Amino acid sequence: MFWKVMNEFQIIKNFFTQQTVNRADVKKGIGDDCAIVSVPPLHQLAITTDTLIAGVHFPSETEPMDIGYKSLAVNLSDLAAMGAAPAWVTLALTLPDKNPKWLKSFCEGFFSLAAKFNVQLIGGDLTKGPLSITVQALGFLPNQHHLLRSNAKAGDLICVTGTLGDARLALKHSNQPFNLSAADHAYLYQRLNRPIPRIECSKAIINLAHAAIDVSDGLAADLTHILTASEVGAIIYVDQIPLSSTLRHHLSYDEAIHFALTGGDDYELCFTMPTSNKTELLHKFRSLNCNLTTIGVITDQPGFILSYQNGKPYNGPTQGYQHF
Amino acid sequence: MFWKVMNEFQIIKNFFTQQTVNRADVKKGIGDDCAIVSVPPLHQLAITTDTLIAGVHFPSETEPMDIGYKSLAVNLSDLAAMGAAPAWVTLALTLPDKNPKWLKSFCEGFFSLAAKFNVQLIGGDLTKGPLSITVQALGFLPNQHHLLRSNAKAGDLICVTGTLGDARLALKHSNQPFNLSAADHAYLYQRLNRPIPRIECSKAIINLAHAAIDVSDGLAADLTHILTASEVGAIIYVDQIPLSSTLRHHLSYDEAIHFALTGGDDYELCFTMPTSNKTELLHKFRSLNCNLTTIGVITDQPGFILSYQNGKPYNGPTQGYQHF
Repeated sequence: MFWKVMNEFQIIKNFFTQQTVNRADVKKGIGDDCAIVSVPPLHQLAITTDTLIAGVHFPSETEPMDIGYKSLAVNLSDLAAMGAAPAWVTLALTLPDKNPKWLKSFCEGFFSLAAKFNVQLIGGDLTKGPLSITVQALGFLPNQHHLLRSNAKAGDLICVTGTLGDARLALKHSNQPFNLSAADHAYLYQRLNRPIPRIECSKAIINLAHAAIDVSDGLAADLTHILTASEVGAIIYVDQIPLSSTLRHHLSYDEAIHFALTGGDDYELCFTMPTSNKTELLHKFRSLNCNLTTIGVITDQPGFILSYQNGKPYNGPTQGYQHF
Repeated sequence: MFWKVMNEFQIIKNFFTQQTVNRADVKKGIGDDCAIVSVPPLHQLAITTDTLIAGVHFPSETEPMDIGYKSLAVNLSDLAAMGAAPAWVTLALTLPDKNPKWLKSFCEGFFSLAAKFNVQLIGGDLTKGPLSITVQALGFLPNQHHLLRSNAKAGDLICVTGTLGDARLALKHSNQPFNLSAADHAYLYQRLNRPIPRIECSKAIINLAHAAIDVSDGLAADLTHILTASEVGAIIYVDQIPLSSTLRHHLSYDEAIHFALTGGDDYELCFTMPTSNKTELLHKFRSLNCNLTTIGVITDQPGFILSYQNGKPYNGPTQGYQHF
């Protein structure tokens, strides 16, 4: 763990102890062979880990501040998908060199988000090598309360938060720039680099939803995980899929739907719930700064049908992003 | 987390679900956005993470089976240094390509050690990039029982398990081969690639020791962490430092001590304890297959003095391995 060698110690002392969060349930944080923490009584622990690699999970030219932010955000998003309240994180950081400017900026992005959700960095490892960031996030779940992928039921509504496809459009722009207004540029790169982990939405749905997942690899791929795990199918009303005006402005309808279905990095929540819970859910979402859209229904019949209610049909490809 | 995309799913299904450990405290293991686990009542959680990079933490030609073993072993060693009983691990694996032979061998090494200590893999992430392995290990500590670096007291004996410097000699051989008998070759590479996490020793010392650390960066560097954290000093009797006959056979006395003081990768425990506990400790170690040696005493005066009791003095360098 952190602080094994002197220079590593100095790096950490300079940057990583600048965090402001100091939780009462952390008995020992950074600075020993392990951290020591307490889980509250009658709670279980949710644990997730995600790695971000330069050139794979973010364009190589991404600002270190955004890399710091996003490496934490994608892990908090996994906690949100489970219904867990974030508590602690560890950080395994591999850097090609010790660049104080890079580290300072990385930490600003990382710790600004951590502070927002009262998340404490409790340890990690710092090694020399090709840039790679692995964050592990831990959060609490009241006993018996959690959102699994495997609990969707036929008849459930399928809902998503926010809009889909924006991060994919930002990536397209990053790879092959096209004309964007300053406002659209800011909006899209915010969506790509600074996804909002839907922790607040997760709290709102924990007792109302049956199944949930975060949309990291594209709606089609991620919803398919729910369908497979729950042994059910789905009808998706493609014309109901929430698209931002920026996405609609820069893409044809088919392209926009394609991006929403298959673009990764949205980090919105996709969840299913009984129709009878809709009124209560809408009421809870009223106080949240987050769109909520019903985009389909769960069916008994396995499989994934793209349909439409009022708008246009869509017949494009649906495959998500694959790492290998 | 695991299982986001189909090919990743297949890789994991083929290899990572072959583990034999299935703990009752794992409510949800591999296969959702997070794992869900329970910490036993009246226990705290110890958490650690370590990254292994090819060419930095192991020679590039290391067998994948040994990489799998060692990536888990070094993390379990951190739990041992804290006095924690291992329970769960996550694995963030970055691979240049999906090589089934490599993965099979890696998993054999990883899961064989996991089974030995009843450790369950509960999740992880699989990404494409330069070979890098980040393991996070979690274990239990009875409330109020733990071994910190910061609790050494003047007058404490300083003890180490096993022998020191062997892994460093194996590394030297790996970089620049010299004549080794088959038995010495097997012994040294076992020490480098298959360190035994000192979990059993840790159980023996948890209620007897004041402070502990695992020797990963060399005795001098790691003991210095205890001294700094505890605001004490130490006298080390260099002629008492436990050296294997293989190390003594292949190195001069000064070189052997130098390797023991500064060579990394030993993963033995170094701990301090009141003299009054020595008899009980020796009794407990009688049933363990592990050497125990007293190598010095903790002093009031800050600093690190190399001395000798009966044998030869040593005045070589003491700096540990630094990542940057």
